[in-house]
Amino acid sequence: MDVFGRVQNQRQIESQIVRWRDSEARAERDVVSVEEPLEVRIEGTAVAVIMRTPGDDFELSAGFLLSEGILDGPDAIGSISYCPHADSPNEKNVVEVKLSTGYTFDSSQLKRNFYASSSCGVCGKASIEAITVGRSIVRDDFIVDAQDLCTWPDAMRQAQAVFEKTGSLHAAALFRENKTLLDIREDVGRHNAVDKIVGSFALRGEALPDGTALLVSGRTSFEIVQKALVAGIVFVAAVSAPSSLAVELARAGGMTLVGFLRGKGFNIYAGSERIRGDVPIIGE
Amino acid sequence: MDVFGRVQNQRQIESQIVRWRDSEARAERDVVSVEEPLEVRIEGTAVAVIMRTPGDDFELSAGFLLSEGILDGPDAIGSISYCPHADSPNEKNVVEVKLSTGYTFDSSQLKRNFYASSSCGVCGKASIEAITVGRSIVRDDFIVDAQDLCTWPDAMRQAQAVFEKTGSLHAAALFRENKTLLDIREDVGRHNAVDKIVGSFALRGEALPDGTALLVSGRTSFEIVQKALVAGIVFVAAVSAPSSLAVELARAGGMTLVGFLRGKGFNIYAGSERIRGDVPIIGE
Repeated sequence: MDVFGRVQNQRQIESQIVRWRDSEARAERDVVSVEEPLEVRIEGTAVAVIMRTPGDDFELSAGFLLSEGILDGPDAIGSISYCPHADSPNEKNVVEVKLSTGYTFDSSQLKRNFYASSSCGVCGKASIEAITVGRSIVRDDFIVDAQDLCTWPDAMRQAQAVFEKTGSLHAAALFRENKTLLDIREDVGRHNAVDKIVGSFALRGEALPDGTALLVSGRTSFEIVQKALVAGIVFVAAVSAPSSLAVELARAGGMTLVGFLRGKGFNIYAGSERIRGDVPIIGE
Repeated sequence: MDVFGRVQNQRQIESQIVRWRDSEARAERDVVSVEEPLEVRIEGTAVAVIMRTPGDDFELSAGFLLSEGILDGPDAIGSISYCPHADSPNEKNVVEVKLSTGYTFDSSQLKRNFYASSSCGVCGKASIEAITVGRSIVRDDFIVDAQDLCTWPDAMRQAQAVFEKTGSLHAAALFRENKTLLDIREDVGRHNAVDKIVGSFALRGEALPDGTALLVSGRTSFEIVQKALVAGIVFVAAVSAPSSLAVELARAGGMTLVGFLRGKGFNIYAGSERIRGDVPIIGE
């Protein structure tokens, strides 16, 4: 069990949120989808870390190895099991694939020394510690008005309409307190849109202004929150749902995380102290 | 220019589609978002391949290296340019980062020999060839009725409702001709849901039945179509838009690709011969 009272391999967990609607804000429990890293090993060699929802882990491992062409066919798989000696507090996050007799795995085919993204920890807790340890928890005086916050998605969509026609590009936008859209980038990948907007400041040699918030289309994963935290952005909002690991990282990093920002309402998953409105929060 | 008449670094391209609505089907041109791989190198060493929409490539590279902690800060970046000697037909798909004087890059920090997904080619064409060459183009007699096709998203959502409460998990489902939902898997990652469902057959030692189609929630990227193709699935449908590379791969692989499957309509991006309906296709 962890801070959420979570048990291993759970797919959904309850989390304390503030559900903010036009006329009232209420502290309550809501359900969040679980995101955890899964390390896949073949005969002891780690070949991938996949951020996934626990469950069907052997199917995921087999499907991944086959569909990515790492193994040639199902016959190559002798057995799949959770790794009993894994150096991990959650042994259900490491899967060991043993090959059938006569099959060998040529790890030199993994020839490029590619960087595996942030998810290198083999449990969410390790991933969070790797990012937050040594990083000072940010306690700033950045306050967003709830009504202003609700205008952000429309402002982003209007800015997007200038660029794109397909409606199929994700967007990441920066907002100043409280309503100014500072900049926007688009990409087929949500995380790429975030990297583009953060990188634009880096390349100009500028720091992000204090009190800058990030809005992303779609969902918030661990990766999105991590990119914001590393860039020094303390306020992340999204049009859709966050994952469990996104919520955990936002809390550990002293950030504000808003989800389901639509119409006149939104849910606050972390850092409600940065949001101000006319209504008291009931039940907090 | 390629088959789409695309020029380098274009973000959106026109593609020939069939727009199928309740009362008519019309062949026309529509706009698709471009997806292409970008290889990022530091001092000549490849550190990542990112599937992205071209544009703002230097910003993306800088943002990625910083937000993933590969470089410590913007000062480390001396220059960024497209790689002039890249072994690639599209030199705008390889970016070379030179470090500032006094900065070094320790490639041993890229210590895990992780598999970089299918996107290892440095241009979409190379990625597609890597997957399709040697694979027989599938020409089967699998036909889906247009009205049946339109029932799939509801059937998937109903099956999903049994499992999940948050509305934030992606789903992948297999359908038989024409209406039977064969199986479903869920995950925070769309590609994981596909791996889980493909892997479930592999682990049971079963082949996918002939005439099996895949439906995914959300968008179709190159990776989704690739996983389907490798699994021998010739018919892929999605609730939202495909990327350019997804369309190209589906065509090269002799597959059917449907997007924007909503209500009583959908768009066909490849393989319209596998869809049958009462209405003639106008303009084809």
